[in-house]
Amino acid sequence: MTTTDVFLASKRAALSYDTDPGTGELRAWLAPGGTGNVVAEQAGVLNVSWIASADSDDDRRAAAANPEGVTMRLHSGRDIRVRLIRHDERVFRSVQNHVTADLLWAANNYGWDRWTQPSFDAATRAGWSDFDRFTHDFADELLKSSATSADPLFLVHDYQLVRVPALLREQRPHAPILLFVHIPWPSADYWRVLPREARAGIVRDMLPATTIGFFADRWCRNFLDCVADLLPDARVDREAMTVERQGHRTQLRTMPLGYSPLTLDGRQPELPEGVEEWASGHRLVVHSGRTDPIKNAERAVRAFVLAARSGDLADVRMLVRMNPNRLYVPANADYVRRVEAAVSEANAALGPDTVRIHTDNDVNHTIACFRRADLLMFNSTVDGQNLSTFEAPLVNEHDADVILSEMCGAAEVLGPYCRTVNPFDLAEQAEAIGAALAQDDGERARSAARRREAARPWTLESWVRAQLDGLAADHGARHDHH
Amino acid sequence: MTTTDVFLASKRAALSYDTDPGTGELRAWLAPGGTGNVVAEQAGVLNVSWIASADSDDDRRAAAANPEGVTMRLHSGRDIRVRLIRHDERVFRSVQNHVTADLLWAANNYGWDRWTQPSFDAATRAGWSDFDRFTHDFADELLKSSATSADPLFLVHDYQLVRVPALLREQRPHAPILLFVHIPWPSADYWRVLPREARAGIVRDMLPATTIGFFADRWCRNFLDCVADLLPDARVDREAMTVERQGHRTQLRTMPLGYSPLTLDGRQPELPEGVEEWASGHRLVVHSGRTDPIKNAERAVRAFVLAARSGDLADVRMLVRMNPNRLYVPANADYVRRVEAAVSEANAALGPDTVRIHTDNDVNHTIACFRRADLLMFNSTVDGQNLSTFEAPLVNEHDADVILSEMCGAAEVLGPYCRTVNPFDLAEQAEAIGAALAQDDGERARSAARRREAARPWTLESWVRAQLDGLAADHGARHDHH
Repeated sequence: MTTTDVFLASKRAALSYDTDPGTGELRAWLAPGGTGNVVAEQAGVLNVSWIASADSDDDRRAAAANPEGVTMRLHSGRDIRVRLIRHDERVFRSVQNHVTADLLWAANNYGWDRWTQPSFDAATRAGWSDFDRFTHDFADELLKSSATSADPLFLVHDYQLVRVPALLREQRPHAPILLFVHIPWPSADYWRVLPREARAGIVRDMLPATTIGFFADRWCRNFLDCVADLLPDARVDREAMTVERQGHRTQLRTMPLGYSPLTLDGRQPELPEGVEEWASGHRLVVHSGRTDPIKNAERAVRAFVLAARSGDLADVRMLVRMNPNRLYVPANADYVRRVEAAVSEANAALGPDTVRIHTDNDVNHTIACFRRADLLMFNSTVDGQNLSTFEAPLVNEHDADVILSEMCGAAEVLGPYCRTVNPFDLAEQAEAIGAALAQDDGERARSAARRREAARPWTLESWVRAQLDGLAADHGARHDHH
Repeated sequence: MTTTDVFLASKRAALSYDTDPGTGELRAWLAPGGTGNVVAEQAGVLNVSWIASADSDDDRRAAAANPEGVTMRLHSGRDIRVRLIRHDERVFRSVQNHVTADLLWAANNYGWDRWTQPSFDAATRAGWSDFDRFTHDFADELLKSSATSADPLFLVHDYQLVRVPALLREQRPHAPILLFVHIPWPSADYWRVLPREARAGIVRDMLPATTIGFFADRWCRNFLDCVADLLPDARVDREAMTVERQGHRTQLRTMPLGYSPLTLDGRQPELPEGVEEWASGHRLVVHSGRTDPIKNAERAVRAFVLAARSGDLADVRMLVRMNPNRLYVPANADYVRRVEAAVSEANAALGPDTVRIHTDNDVNHTIACFRRADLLMFNSTVDGQNLSTFEAPLVNEHDADVILSEMCGAAEVLGPYCRTVNPFDLAEQAEAIGAALAQDDGERARSAARRREAARPWTLESWVRAQLDGLAADHGARHDHH
């Protein structure tokens, strides 16, 4: 199996185009952070073309002008080749703003309260048929690109493309197909909230993959439970993590990813303006994450207040670092307001400017905050993996302890080396903050060394290797099986 | 095993005392409806004393005056003997208003949105230690009552008493103990939302029962998943529905309950005032349930509007029948407001007084509405069983079709004979309403006959027998096993 036969696809291009105001020419730029971007790095490692969706008008113009794709240099210094799909614009918007944001993201991340949301109606069904067309666009592009290959290998990435494997399998009955889902998979009762057609259709369309990857065993188990719940003709083996259905066997695999060493190294970290002075002479607790309620900064701040009330933390300040993300989604905008309210209350209780929010999308700022922290806090309500939990301890220079939610995928690797917490339990988080800050320097240093040791092996390169090796093994086993 | 050795306990007494204003004497009355009440009927069938919590001041006075218990006549005509436990009043209020209402009810019924709720703190921990004391009260009373019995058999009912089996087992290592949970059991990811001590402690304290009963396989499976998730030293066999831990085997059993024939027969149904005239000449859709968001009347009304818009339902009216329940719980009060708003919108869209709400706790009103309905709708977001789904088709006199949520425990028995729906899918529910009302009379009559046939066997008596037979079998197997 040579890498020239690898076809890689994901919805998010992580790159975008705009028009240079000087020259009027299109220029490409890279969006910061996020699990989606690791797919770009993966394309660089594999040295293959990457197929993704054109998003903006400029993207579509660039795609039209470069039907064979464009080459870009990543932060890591690797070059990648990207081919952008020009979807029907209305279909793309519907999938982007409704199907993936309202429907799938919420379903996979426990985003509905069930009382007031969701309520599915005719618009949901229309969205579902748009999702059909979007899925076909990707499958068609992958099949067209691989038409002349005798032995293509497909790497299909993330939840937006979950239905692609079924269409690939129809045309390529013997090809190795990997589907990797970067976000959590929910329990069977929750997945069932989705309309019948969607909940069973998605699971059915995923199973034709040879291998389905998640970042954590918990998501694999939940997926298997959903299959057992919804597809009576599927045989689920929880021990072996396989599904057999209609003569096809699908292997589930947990494949953790921690960080991309080149990406981390290729940065010029710098604290956001004013933070250096404000934090000077203080120990600093850093919470970091997108403006997404799963990141749970409100409870982190409230736990910090409880900790400060029950211990002597007069020299401690807290920075809530937020990366603005999809603020047009009401749940995200509400989240920001709730975090701001919690910070106001914290400062009223603990003294002005004890807790500060800093919001922007500059990765160099984020990394500098990771470096400077005396305690790192990642208390997501749920999180597919959360790469920051690997990156932050690796770049940190203060032997910062790490408070880690048990509902981050990363907890399956890093849990034993962190203070794991229930993300809903303020009392437990407050105790963890207090205990972490009460350690002596030697204890902190030893625990930080063990944590770095535990995080270090989980590189992008090892993750890509795990995908290819896993897929090769499952593809081989599949032949044995028939 | 004779019934004289049976000791039956549940928190809710279903009876309450007040002071007769004329004589100043205490008089007992029976609270209406609810799954809790079937425990009273069960005590009548078994002819045993029933141990329950004193709730009001008058209850406590009555308990003090009658240490050996009091005898009461049920609606069924059966007499029961009840002994009321006088808990420390503060402890009881804490368990009643906080631990069971805020914590356990929400955990078992998917009541938290996870963004704004829950947040556990010192008050949660204090509640947990109150729950300890409450649990001890019940175990002590059961052990005291059974002290002179060589072979006592314990029937412990519902979620408020989930921790009692562990304490009974300590003192009675070889006794058959059944724990029956009347409400849903959630998925492992959701149960995990509870604080560590509570989530693992409850599951650990349930397992010393010989048999754990639920109304549906789905709740048994979820419980087994929680055990596997939280107790590494437990061996879970999902096929056999058993758990082995520390030398003890626990058997999970699904034991459906439908209705109590004597209770149904002993009524004098009467439509609430004005309903007869209002519904006259119209076909009537009836939605019925407590004022609890799981009952999902808001979506039922919205689905009715969609159905009316896409079909000719000019002759159809809808009655939302609500039993007031714990309106001091904010989620319940919010629910009522949302239902009222949906009804206002429906009447604005479909014409004045097309949809009407009727609220009271008179069981005779409820049964009369069940009789009168041309279509019955039970679309709970989740529901342990929902006895109304059995009672209503059995008393109905119009061959009413039944729309039934797939998330009611009852759907495992009645699903094949009803129109099962996803409770979150308005479009699906609207189609079900349209299709149900479009049937011809013969079709309706045949389907109603099949449905009554399916519902009829699930009597209180058969449920009590299932408990005793299941417990005897599991107790026997336990001896084989050692």
